[in-house]
Amino acid sequence: MTKTTLKEIADILDLSISTVSKALKGYPDVSQQTKKRVLELTESLSYTPNTFAQSLRSRTSKTIGVIIPAMVHYFFSNIIDAILREAESRDYMVILMQSNEDAQLEKKQVDLLLKKGVDGILMSLSNKTHNFEHLQKIIDYNIPLVLFDKIAKLVPCSKVTIDDIKASYDAVQFLINKGHQRIAYFRGDLNPQNSIDRFLGYKKALEDNDIAFDPSLVYLCPDADFKDGYTAAEKLINDHGTSIDAVHSITDLTAIGAINYFNKKNIRIPEDIAVLGFSNWFMSSIITPTLSSVEQNAGKMGEESIRILFDEMDSKQKGMTIKHQKIVIDTQLVLRNSC
Amino acid sequence: MTKTTLKEIADILDLSISTVSKALKGYPDVSQQTKKRVLELTESLSYTPNTFAQSLRSRTSKTIGVIIPAMVHYFFSNIIDAILREAESRDYMVILMQSNEDAQLEKKQVDLLLKKGVDGILMSLSNKTHNFEHLQKIIDYNIPLVLFDKIAKLVPCSKVTIDDIKASYDAVQFLINKGHQRIAYFRGDLNPQNSIDRFLGYKKALEDNDIAFDPSLVYLCPDADFKDGYTAAEKLINDHGTSIDAVHSITDLTAIGAINYFNKKNIRIPEDIAVLGFSNWFMSSIITPTLSSVEQNAGKMGEESIRILFDEMDSKQKGMTIKHQKIVIDTQLVLRNSC
Repeated sequence: MTKTTLKEIADILDLSISTVSKALKGYPDVSQQTKKRVLELTESLSYTPNTFAQSLRSRTSKTIGVIIPAMVHYFFSNIIDAILREAESRDYMVILMQSNEDAQLEKKQVDLLLKKGVDGILMSLSNKTHNFEHLQKIIDYNIPLVLFDKIAKLVPCSKVTIDDIKASYDAVQFLINKGHQRIAYFRGDLNPQNSIDRFLGYKKALEDNDIAFDPSLVYLCPDADFKDGYTAAEKLINDHGTSIDAVHSITDLTAIGAINYFNKKNIRIPEDIAVLGFSNWFMSSIITPTLSSVEQNAGKMGEESIRILFDEMDSKQKGMTIKHQKIVIDTQLVLRNSC
Repeated sequence: MTKTTLKEIADILDLSISTVSKALKGYPDVSQQTKKRVLELTESLSYTPNTFAQSLRSRTSKTIGVIIPAMVHYFFSNIIDAILREAESRDYMVILMQSNEDAQLEKKQVDLLLKKGVDGILMSLSNKTHNFEHLQKIIDYNIPLVLFDKIAKLVPCSKVTIDDIKASYDAVQFLINKGHQRIAYFRGDLNPQNSIDRFLGYKKALEDNDIAFDPSLVYLCPDADFKDGYTAAEKLINDHGTSIDAVHSITDLTAIGAINYFNKKNIRIPEDIAVLGFSNWFMSSIITPTLSSVEQNAGKMGEESIRILFDEMDSKQKGMTIKHQKIVIDTQLVLRNSC
């Protein structure tokens, strides 16, 4: 297409030449509506080759964007590992970003990825993300989006999670079956869906076993890390002595912090207090005592997430309707010496 | 520039129009020589705007490529964390790739990054990389390249490492000062420079203390992981019983594998055998006994690597000569209960 043609289209539609050019190239910073107007006009003009319409559909960058809350994290490293392997096998490149649990940064990163023209986006949300406009923006740009692990339930896109309620329920049910009644819970941050769901699983297991829920046995671990677990264990012993039978914890790292404190105070695990984590980090299998946990199958979560993303990217390529998927990855209790 | 002009240049130089167009846009899949020919001709033609020359110099993708051998690795996660933070602060995007210790894959990834037109590349080489043509290719494309941790000494580019010889030397000297004489070494793969250097540090410390080097005390741990360490410890005890005073190991993960074996066999650490790792992984501070190690300052290595890369990218932008830097990050012995 010559400059003259672009100019004609621009004049007719009252747009700048560069906007028309960008619209024809499918750039994401041009709205879908404008793209549609440009495309319709170019198609209606006799000298417009059909390849414009094609290129608008087929233009791919062979690049996907991935945003995770944190990099130094066994669970997310395993997910990224799976994503990189699968992307690699399809000759796709991965732009990786970490939000550092900062909702503003996450929003900015989405804008950068859209500007870059990635073909699809995989995201696990920051704990601070309450507003989902940036996710809606991805959807409005018609870019396939898959949320995994930390999702927003109401955003219309594909999602890959575990059943956090069931996983924690099963863990607590196991502790109850072992005869434990006074079970403390080290819960995660208040906002994230998976943190809420794990807490609900804990409560429901107590309820189904006619054990009264005692809020004084719940300790908040907002960063869900070693330090949070250590501090919560210290508070727990100060508040309740060893009248507690067991602790179930939002993450392995928190559980390991607790184990560290109990070991230091010569509180025997599991004789005095049983401990059960969540996530099955590698280090849980080598600490003393080894930590029972919930295997979350991070690799499988990464594989399924990128598989769905490629499905959606393929469907989009072929002009087919995208059907959102909701995948729930199985979890398993991994029993070791801590309970 | 109109098609006619492009065609004229193409005809004169006996190139395709698309090659001329790509050369003018600075695409990396056109050789430097061809770019030079095209640029010189366009500059010599009266109707050539100077902006071509400028755009050839100033074209940036605001994207850098990073290739690491492995993702699920505490050291590399920390380096990537630092790289992402710094890139973020400059509004740069990071394409991340893992070679999985596969030299062929690493080569292919370099090609993909060059094709993508990244502004700079950060790499830590796979253990299997013996041939450095792909690194030379990056240099020939005039793309800034910084190697970190696993480097190739002779490739002319900037490098960020620790002093592996000195770090292991200091570790072994510490064990000798503590009275240990029969010190086993769990060495890494034969090829990587840092593995070679750490082994040389071990040997030199023995030599400087008039302790004869005994090859039967050296155990190869090619994957430098938990399993390698566990197996090597088993062999060590089978071969030498507890006549060994201490073990120094290529990585913490290997040392932790050894500790696991010794604990299982009720071999007391450090009373029967002292253990000293390398890398100071988080889990080393929480296992039983806690593991002494060498702090490698991964975050600092990541920061320095990307700082140098941005320096070089800036210099290139400004048309200045790039001066390669060689940075050595300090290490520290971290003493805990295992020795």
